[in-house]
Amino acid sequence: MKYFLSHIGERMSILSGVREIMADIEQTLKTVDPDKLINLSPGNPLILPETAKLWRKHAQKLLASEEFDHVIGRYGLTQGYQPFIDAIVEYFNKNYETNFTDRNILVTPGSQFAYFIAINAFAGPGADGNREVLFPLCPEYTGYSNMGIDHRFLRANKPNIEIIGDHRFKYKVNFENLSLDDTGLVLFSRPCNPSGNLVTDEEVYKLVDLAKAKNIPVMVDSAYAPPFPNMVFEDMDLIFDDNLIHVMSFSKTGLPGERLGVVIGSEENISLMRAFQANAAIHSSRFGQALLKEILPTGDLEVICDEIVSPFYENKHQLLHRLIEKYFNPEIPYYLHNSEGTLFAWIWFKDLPIADTELYQELKKENVLVVPGSSFFPGLKDKESWPHHRECIRISLTASDDHLDRGLAKIAEVVDKLYA
Amino acid sequence: MKYFLSHIGERMSILSGVREIMADIEQTLKTVDPDKLINLSPGNPLILPETAKLWRKHAQKLLASEEFDHVIGRYGLTQGYQPFIDAIVEYFNKNYETNFTDRNILVTPGSQFAYFIAINAFAGPGADGNREVLFPLCPEYTGYSNMGIDHRFLRANKPNIEIIGDHRFKYKVNFENLSLDDTGLVLFSRPCNPSGNLVTDEEVYKLVDLAKAKNIPVMVDSAYAPPFPNMVFEDMDLIFDDNLIHVMSFSKTGLPGERLGVVIGSEENISLMRAFQANAAIHSSRFGQALLKEILPTGDLEVICDEIVSPFYENKHQLLHRLIEKYFNPEIPYYLHNSEGTLFAWIWFKDLPIADTELYQELKKENVLVVPGSSFFPGLKDKESWPHHRECIRISLTASDDHLDRGLAKIAEVVDKLYA
Repeated sequence: MKYFLSHIGERMSILSGVREIMADIEQTLKTVDPDKLINLSPGNPLILPETAKLWRKHAQKLLASEEFDHVIGRYGLTQGYQPFIDAIVEYFNKNYETNFTDRNILVTPGSQFAYFIAINAFAGPGADGNREVLFPLCPEYTGYSNMGIDHRFLRANKPNIEIIGDHRFKYKVNFENLSLDDTGLVLFSRPCNPSGNLVTDEEVYKLVDLAKAKNIPVMVDSAYAPPFPNMVFEDMDLIFDDNLIHVMSFSKTGLPGERLGVVIGSEENISLMRAFQANAAIHSSRFGQALLKEILPTGDLEVICDEIVSPFYENKHQLLHRLIEKYFNPEIPYYLHNSEGTLFAWIWFKDLPIADTELYQELKKENVLVVPGSSFFPGLKDKESWPHHRECIRISLTASDDHLDRGLAKIAEVVDKLYA
Repeated sequence: MKYFLSHIGERMSILSGVREIMADIEQTLKTVDPDKLINLSPGNPLILPETAKLWRKHAQKLLASEEFDHVIGRYGLTQGYQPFIDAIVEYFNKNYETNFTDRNILVTPGSQFAYFIAINAFAGPGADGNREVLFPLCPEYTGYSNMGIDHRFLRANKPNIEIIGDHRFKYKVNFENLSLDDTGLVLFSRPCNPSGNLVTDEEVYKLVDLAKAKNIPVMVDSAYAPPFPNMVFEDMDLIFDDNLIHVMSFSKTGLPGERLGVVIGSEENISLMRAFQANAAIHSSRFGQALLKEILPTGDLEVICDEIVSPFYENKHQLLHRLIEKYFNPEIPYYLHNSEGTLFAWIWFKDLPIADTELYQELKKENVLVVPGSSFFPGLKDKESWPHHRECIRISLTASDDHLDRGLAKIAEVVDKLYA
């Protein structure tokens, strides 16, 4: 039966590019002997024994109390489980010298849903015309695609590329080309999935000021930022401002299955997003919130992030650098993005003779799975004039050292043949 | 700072009528001595010791296994936690002689979110023009308001009112006036929150057939239906059909804090809704799903619903009937809706001299809280020609017997004065 679909329905029923790749990967995982496969694609963080132990300890404590019955057995406030909200407020006011109250906080059923709310509320067609979501830098998180009423309302600003040494580079915001005309929301991940790029403090302050002058909110996706999970290997400030909406996730700290996003912003923005959530989903599930409200004040999670999670992925990044130097042909114009954060490495093969999606297929033939980079340019216009968007791949550092070693050796071999 | 808002943003930032009342009630609860207040407003189900014990037992079992680490520590499939999906498929195929596969199931972060997806995907502006959501009967669940891009896309069909005896009535679908023109989705709750009305099997079959002839999906909100929580006191069939989307909730069985909706429908509809959810929220939280996948096959939950939950609320309905007969002045043209399901009673005061919202205020002065009925007519046009929509109140049967007794006595007294 073919039903009528609204514009939103049409748009939202398209799976974003990376999800097609993920479906292809899932299929491959089912058909190829797992012992032979080197999977460098996952976005799923590793389960670290130290964090698993922490969740379990507090889950046992919760279960031993009557609070458990109320946590799962009662409807709650849309903004979140009050003791968790209070714990967040206290945490930031104590550690970051902020002056938040519970009116600055909204807990969402995963941070993805916070982006969905903001993209649809602040951009698209409205009484004052049409407004766009601006990504000040690209590549960007592929999950921002297919979020709103129309993909035409997404717009990416091409970055400046800073070449560092022979085989390194970094993306910088191209402020010269940046236009905030017809913009309803500025959005970026910091550090960035997929590239590991960290938009600098200076760049953030500049973006916030430019946006403020035009009454535009700026949303920062802090899924990999400090304090949790703190997968950042450079100095960075957490920046708060009236028109800045800060979004945390607990997925990379070990709770992806519980879908917990935390939005921190001005009372006005939180109030708007809270109402949207009340209408669309009532409130977020409360079990994970009840665990975290106990854990936050202890400081245990911070210690695990700083002493285990962050060094674990920094070591993986360093291993990757050594492997690339070991295996890659220095004659090839490859460039590794600076490892400033996240659990991903991002490699640019300048003048790659085939498209990234074809490279993905070639690597798959050799039983190595990566994610082709072209999925990570939501809102990019005039693609054909900028081949860069199909010359990159994303590599997950959640793989074992052995798999990274064999995987990178294989990538080097395949790429070498392509350039030959 | 005044930001641009899209049409969706404007619409979704309005709290539906009943939420304003709820905010007023929360305020009252804070200021009035709780010993003096009789609160007949809550939608929050009672925590029954038997169900609480069941959740706790299975939570302890889950925590004792390694599965717990994976349930909270891994991203999952958008459609839901696979063992839970499998348990649902098996449950229905075994008990209802259906032929479902896992492609017929989608777990949403609360059933509210399922309505949000369907209302926005199947109605509103699209390439083929504008389509509306049709409520074949009203009053209806107030949570369907403020869900979509524009409230003009909601349309309620006024019911036939069947008077039964001196002081009873029942709503029936008015098929004579029912028009499916420009309709993208037919939606109703069965049994109905707020009225407790049960759209009959015959009415459902007729609606499904009419809709099918025009390629329109029909969505049935089964939040109070069998098998869970089975708050239904009449015979009814669970009806499945290709164009029927059946939505279950586990909130009224005791898991509202975990936000679990289960959508059952054709592969085509599930696939569409799954993609929407993947883009907007990735997947639902998994802790509650992991508990339920253990509980469903045991049959324990069914026993609790059939032997405890259902009789508990049926007894409350019967108590309410006795109290009304005891306290209400038979000279007044009041009509209690047939108690066919849910945990609510719905009373119609024909020719009420003041509006329902004013009656709410009068009762509040006497420290009795009810919910005024006018919040429950989303999509009703031409309101002024039909005073019925502001002559009703909703009473929650979650109150203690003592509170119901004193509350109904007070309502009788206040209403008596108004008609005098």
